[in-house]
Amino acid sequence: MRFEIDGGDPHSLARAWRLYTAHGVLKTPVFIASATHATIKGLAPEEVAHAGIQVVAVNGYHLWLRPGIEVIREAGGVHRFMNWKRPILSDSGGFQVFSLARSRTITRKGVRFQSHIDGSPKFMTPESSIEAQNALGTDIAMIFDECVAYPATREYVQASVELTLQWAKRSKAAHSNPHQHLFGIVQGGAFEDLRRRSAEETVKIGFPGYALGGLSVGEPQEEMLRVIQATVPYLPEDRPRYVMGVGTPADMLACLRLGIDIFDCVLPNKNARHGTLFTSEGVLKIKNARFRTDQRPLDADCDCDACRKYTRAYLRHLWMAEEPFGARLLTLHNLRHYARFMERVREAIVAGTLSRMHVAEGRAD
Amino acid sequence: MRFEIDGGDPHSLARAWRLYTAHGVLKTPVFIASATHATIKGLAPEEVAHAGIQVVAVNGYHLWLRPGIEVIREAGGVHRFMNWKRPILSDSGGFQVFSLARSRTITRKGVRFQSHIDGSPKFMTPESSIEAQNALGTDIAMIFDECVAYPATREYVQASVELTLQWAKRSKAAHSNPHQHLFGIVQGGAFEDLRRRSAEETVKIGFPGYALGGLSVGEPQEEMLRVIQATVPYLPEDRPRYVMGVGTPADMLACLRLGIDIFDCVLPNKNARHGTLFTSEGVLKIKNARFRTDQRPLDADCDCDACRKYTRAYLRHLWMAEEPFGARLLTLHNLRHYARFMERVREAIVAGTLSRMHVAEGRAD
Repeated sequence: MRFEIDGGDPHSLARAWRLYTAHGVLKTPVFIASATHATIKGLAPEEVAHAGIQVVAVNGYHLWLRPGIEVIREAGGVHRFMNWKRPILSDSGGFQVFSLARSRTITRKGVRFQSHIDGSPKFMTPESSIEAQNALGTDIAMIFDECVAYPATREYVQASVELTLQWAKRSKAAHSNPHQHLFGIVQGGAFEDLRRRSAEETVKIGFPGYALGGLSVGEPQEEMLRVIQATVPYLPEDRPRYVMGVGTPADMLACLRLGIDIFDCVLPNKNARHGTLFTSEGVLKIKNARFRTDQRPLDADCDCDACRKYTRAYLRHLWMAEEPFGARLLTLHNLRHYARFMERVREAIVAGTLSRMHVAEGRAD
Repeated sequence: MRFEIDGGDPHSLARAWRLYTAHGVLKTPVFIASATHATIKGLAPEEVAHAGIQVVAVNGYHLWLRPGIEVIREAGGVHRFMNWKRPILSDSGGFQVFSLARSRTITRKGVRFQSHIDGSPKFMTPESSIEAQNALGTDIAMIFDECVAYPATREYVQASVELTLQWAKRSKAAHSNPHQHLFGIVQGGAFEDLRRRSAEETVKIGFPGYALGGLSVGEPQEEMLRVIQATVPYLPEDRPRYVMGVGTPADMLACLRLGIDIFDCVLPNKNARHGTLFTSEGVLKIKNARFRTDQRPLDADCDCDACRKYTRAYLRHLWMAEEPFGARLLTLHNLRHYARFMERVREAIVAGTLSRMHVAEGRAD
């Protein structure tokens, strides 16, 4: 995976790269917005791009079940299907098989489960996951891994790390899309020595980028940071590093200081749907009665359409009336907040001022 | 209400006018899109305007209950509140008081009822409805009327016509917004003589425009057309005529041939939310399995974003996955279909070719 280096923070491991993909450049650190079902909750692709989102993530498990990979293959890939022209990452579906599917049976060969949509029996293997991702035509694909619940016993995690290593090899062997980069995933739960083994063996298999999986699954932030700090030294300096499922702006800031380049999280979308907004002054709950006649924008420091064109009073009204335009505007705002946060982080890394950055996290409403 | 005449159909009573309002010109025949809660289901105002919608209708009853008229007054009126720059009509809330509210008691003074949202007791009178609409700052307001259910006895309708005439006088007396046109409403159910009395007496009170209410409430189309045909002769030639709650394109075409200029209906929005689309080839149900891999646009003859940027396969996927972007695109399409239909009708009236127009209505799938 070709990349260029724009800068590095002198006081931490944070770095600013340009990663080249078949659908354009990713300027890191980068946040991947969730487009699970090949759509970003209520938003048009051009709005998401305009908000500064560089890349979205679709989900192999969900698209495999619905509409079915062949539907997207016939459309000429997921870019054309959803009309998003920038890079797309696909998750293997591993996480969803373990978090959503019913009646799961794991064997060395793969995972037998029932669809969470209609209960129909399914069998997913590293080969079928990679074949699906090849057909999606995403720019970055992920190996099929086992994502272990938190907390888990050392014995379980140890066996799981070995299984994921086997699946990583099979994923790489099955991968056949030359325009797509297949990333490895390091597992190992909260056990530093297992993380090390997983990292070293995954790197031996060899991938253009490495993810840390099984984090942000309920553990305290300091434990997550401890695991990242213990794992990063075993990942190559010249490959992008991706922590899956992270997180708040504060989480991302802490992680990227440890050398992480890529993040993805459903949080800005999900919080928006729950009326919880990230703003330059902290978190705001739009349903709060004190916004009833508030003629100010959501965030005076934000340039998104929700902030430029509407008042808190109107956004609260849409929210209270459960009008879909409300969730749409709030999602747009949160994504713009994330994109701007990453833009500012990147500027700070390049300027060497990252150590002065902090995040207004608290102050609800 | 100032207007200019652009044309009239030589073979029917259809006419093409320009009606002047405080927020711009309405080219008739015109379809008013529903923006009940001061938003058009999932769409941004600029998208709705771009789709060719000239005017939207907000609902006095709904906005009175939530967010409350004072919230919108403080915002400087409903145009600024919802950021829609074109004309807005407000319904008095009469229809909703009779269709939605609970424990309704009608007196000469007004209607006592319970909010359908929280059950709280409310009392709406012609004066309070008009005061609310004055504060909303809409371009066209409607008198507060009693909307009778269908079918109803002659005795009930007769008494109701008299009540609505009293309320029409009080509505006019209470009206105090010089930038707003207050329209009268003709009632009378299916009884032609009562419609005539209602029309003649309402015209005596004197309004800049006249609506026919209590239609499209379950009666057969031919009965609706019979009532319209029997009523129009008692309405002044030089005032706009508005049939409330109508309808399909075929309904509107039939009505405007009888001299109706203005229509409003929730149908394009509601059908879109149910996956039912108006197209140039008839009605299409997006959930139909035969669209699963259909790479064609919804309607090759339509220029809306849903048709220009997405396939039937993708729209069906969004629909099946219950993704909000699906309802958004389908609503946009139906509104564009309505707007284009009215544009074509108008061109045909001006060109004298309206008699050749027909509507592809059937062909569901």
